[in-house]
Amino acid sequence: MFRKVLIANRGEVAVRIIRALRELGIQSVAVYSTADAEAQHVKLADEAVCVGGPQPADSYLNMQNIVSAAILTGAEAIHPGYGFLSENEEFAELCETCQIAFIGPKPETIQLMGNKANARIQMQANDVPVIPGSTGFLKDADDALATAEKVGYPVMLKTASGGGGKGIRKVLTPDQLRPAYAEATKEAQLSFGDSRMYLEKIVSPAKHIEVQVFADDFGHVVAFPERDCSLQRNQQKVMEESPCAIMTPEEREHVQTIAIRAAEAIGYRNTGTIEFLMNHDHDFYFMEMNTRIQVEHPITEAVTGIDLVKNQIRVAAGEALPFTQADVTIHGAAIEARVNAEDPALDFMPQAGPVRQLRLPGGPGIRVDSGIASGDQITPFYDSMVVKLIAYADTRDEAFAKLREALAEFEMDGIASNQAFLSALLDDPVVMRGEATTNYIMTTFLLEFQQQHVQEVS
Amino acid sequence: MFRKVLIANRGEVAVRIIRALRELGIQSVAVYSTADAEAQHVKLADEAVCVGGPQPADSYLNMQNIVSAAILTGAEAIHPGYGFLSENEEFAELCETCQIAFIGPKPETIQLMGNKANARIQMQANDVPVIPGSTGFLKDADDALATAEKVGYPVMLKTASGGGGKGIRKVLTPDQLRPAYAEATKEAQLSFGDSRMYLEKIVSPAKHIEVQVFADDFGHVVAFPERDCSLQRNQQKVMEESPCAIMTPEEREHVQTIAIRAAEAIGYRNTGTIEFLMNHDHDFYFMEMNTRIQVEHPITEAVTGIDLVKNQIRVAAGEALPFTQADVTIHGAAIEARVNAEDPALDFMPQAGPVRQLRLPGGPGIRVDSGIASGDQITPFYDSMVVKLIAYADTRDEAFAKLREALAEFEMDGIASNQAFLSALLDDPVVMRGEATTNYIMTTFLLEFQQQHVQEVS
Repeated sequence: MFRKVLIANRGEVAVRIIRALRELGIQSVAVYSTADAEAQHVKLADEAVCVGGPQPADSYLNMQNIVSAAILTGAEAIHPGYGFLSENEEFAELCETCQIAFIGPKPETIQLMGNKANARIQMQANDVPVIPGSTGFLKDADDALATAEKVGYPVMLKTASGGGGKGIRKVLTPDQLRPAYAEATKEAQLSFGDSRMYLEKIVSPAKHIEVQVFADDFGHVVAFPERDCSLQRNQQKVMEESPCAIMTPEEREHVQTIAIRAAEAIGYRNTGTIEFLMNHDHDFYFMEMNTRIQVEHPITEAVTGIDLVKNQIRVAAGEALPFTQADVTIHGAAIEARVNAEDPALDFMPQAGPVRQLRLPGGPGIRVDSGIASGDQITPFYDSMVVKLIAYADTRDEAFAKLREALAEFEMDGIASNQAFLSALLDDPVVMRGEATTNYIMTTFLLEFQQQHVQEVS
Repeated sequence: MFRKVLIANRGEVAVRIIRALRELGIQSVAVYSTADAEAQHVKLADEAVCVGGPQPADSYLNMQNIVSAAILTGAEAIHPGYGFLSENEEFAELCETCQIAFIGPKPETIQLMGNKANARIQMQANDVPVIPGSTGFLKDADDALATAEKVGYPVMLKTASGGGGKGIRKVLTPDQLRPAYAEATKEAQLSFGDSRMYLEKIVSPAKHIEVQVFADDFGHVVAFPERDCSLQRNQQKVMEESPCAIMTPEEREHVQTIAIRAAEAIGYRNTGTIEFLMNHDHDFYFMEMNTRIQVEHPITEAVTGIDLVKNQIRVAAGEALPFTQADVTIHGAAIEARVNAEDPALDFMPQAGPVRQLRLPGGPGIRVDSGIASGDQITPFYDSMVVKLIAYADTRDEAFAKLREALAEFEMDGIASNQAFLSALLDDPVVMRGEATTNYIMTTFLLEFQQQHVQEVS
């Protein structure tokens, strides 16, 4: 087992990883930006190294400084957390080159799954159901038209490379397709030097269902019970639960089987999450894979009793998974709320400033993962998520009741938060029935919430 | 089910009960003294009624005011928590008279078990092993001598009535017995008008092992896995764990069977705890019964997954227990540390003053039950226990590691606490082996801790 591990992250996930390391008897090294000198992850780690200025590019994305910090402190491994460098194959490769274990998958896996077009092709080739659309890349506009006709409109034209919205077009009707195809290929060629395109049906309404997988170096691949992460605002998850309230045990087994097939197809190592869309008929379509630990991993830990972060470290150290698929049973229900320093009254604008008092809920079935403490300063440089509240109980209703109570108890004096938004979500009938789809917040709930909120203010 | 329940308590247990009520959808009424106007239990309850001045006798022990508060607010039941009026049969009776449900056993049960001599006799009559000694009361000094000869010295002479150390004598050798008997009977006669005495062998070294029982009105009696509460300072529990590290499953079943027999013998209702001494040979001897919820109940909730407080409320409302003995299985290990506002460097003197910042630990497997929050005032009027930290994991070693980490993270700025004392206990080899007996802290650990502590200070 490692004697010392560096955490290339900040906030609640860095704290989470430090706790796992301490429990395993491993020394922890934090890295931090000059803005984070007083942050909780710096206080809790055994050692801490400043790796640059407040801007992420200067510090938490500064590969050279982070790897240097690991070498200087004698850390044998790096845990990247989520975000920042966690899905950067160059960083994983640099770690390997410097003989530091990267706690995650192989660099080539990160690269493969990082390119959504390649990931789709790879999954198709392995009988993993993908979103209906083209097989491989489109030959030309005629091919695009024929494919769209086959799968049905609306569809999305996507570029093989790139991102940032470049080379992507939403197409609602056949007459829009040729012009959209011409524009998108030109844009993709200009932006990425690659005009290859593919096409996907827009599956909507749908639920976001994801399956965490875990693989070791000894050929064991295990899938966990699904998480329902359909509650999203601007593509950002707001609240997640496990299991999905409207899936049957057979559907669970089915989607787990697909997830294992996907992980085996790409020789996956360590933990990752395969994200699916589930349509109204409960068909599952591969969306993408996150090759890292996720924000919402605690709900899976709650319902299975398995510590995912400790096992990430064990597997990276060359140990076999200490559990089999048969050991991964589900008990009860868990739900997580992401408390963000943001003001719903100001279109969820991120907030910065001192946290005068932080009052955290507790009691049976409540887990708090916080990146901040009373008296800390929230700076404007990083993600606005500061605390995760996780409720776990025998039944879904009880878990909801616990999270309601935990949110009511939570206080963060001095900084606006999305607390009222989260509480309102928990009381929403569609959410309570477990029927919300990925567009529910944006198309329905948010409008009602804002009307209510404006009424209360005026 | 009740619509509204009053909590006749304060601090962390009042908060614990309010959380259970909220989760059950029941309105909560807090009572408070003038010293507790800003306390957490007042903030979290739906309603709050001031019942008197800071001194417990004026408020939290003021039966008339508390019952009046229940009547005025329309509360249908009273939860007494632990301490204060929780084992006061007069209070339980007053509640009954006023047609308010007392969430606990019947008044006559409280009275029976409250008298240690009667409890002993009752248990003996029902084949529950009691501490070796007299059967019923002693006839005279000769009877005392013969009994002591039979069970072996040292022994304790105890009065049938009373308490407060009156009429009690420790007898080390036969020659001390006659004079001690004469003195004690005289003292008992003078103090309580009752000179009846009984005698018990002093079982030492021994472990304090206790078994929680739960009974409903439908004849169901269930026993929970044991708690080891041997870590005590001045008869006060400091840290508790479940299960006991050195008991076998057969011993667990045995002591549970005894506990059920005891509960059935007295027609017990709701939850209570039967305390045993376990000697070196793992013989169990009935000590006494606590007819209320206990401070250390969360470790039982952790290893069984059963919410004891919610079930207290359900059973008091006339519901049947929602679990059977077969449902009460044990998984993993849990340990609780009581964080007290007291200064180990000043012989554990209780501390009062403002809590400038309270930083609570979190993460997987950590439960925090706190009666205070950042910015609160700790007053000198009540028990010094302010926060309970509970760690739960698959194995005892992991639970210890988690609690170590939680204690290291805990910060209460402005008020001295026993944090370092608790951390030292977790690192003590005898404690780690689970071998500590009830006198271990007082005879061994405390001296070493104080020497260490003085050295560090000087």
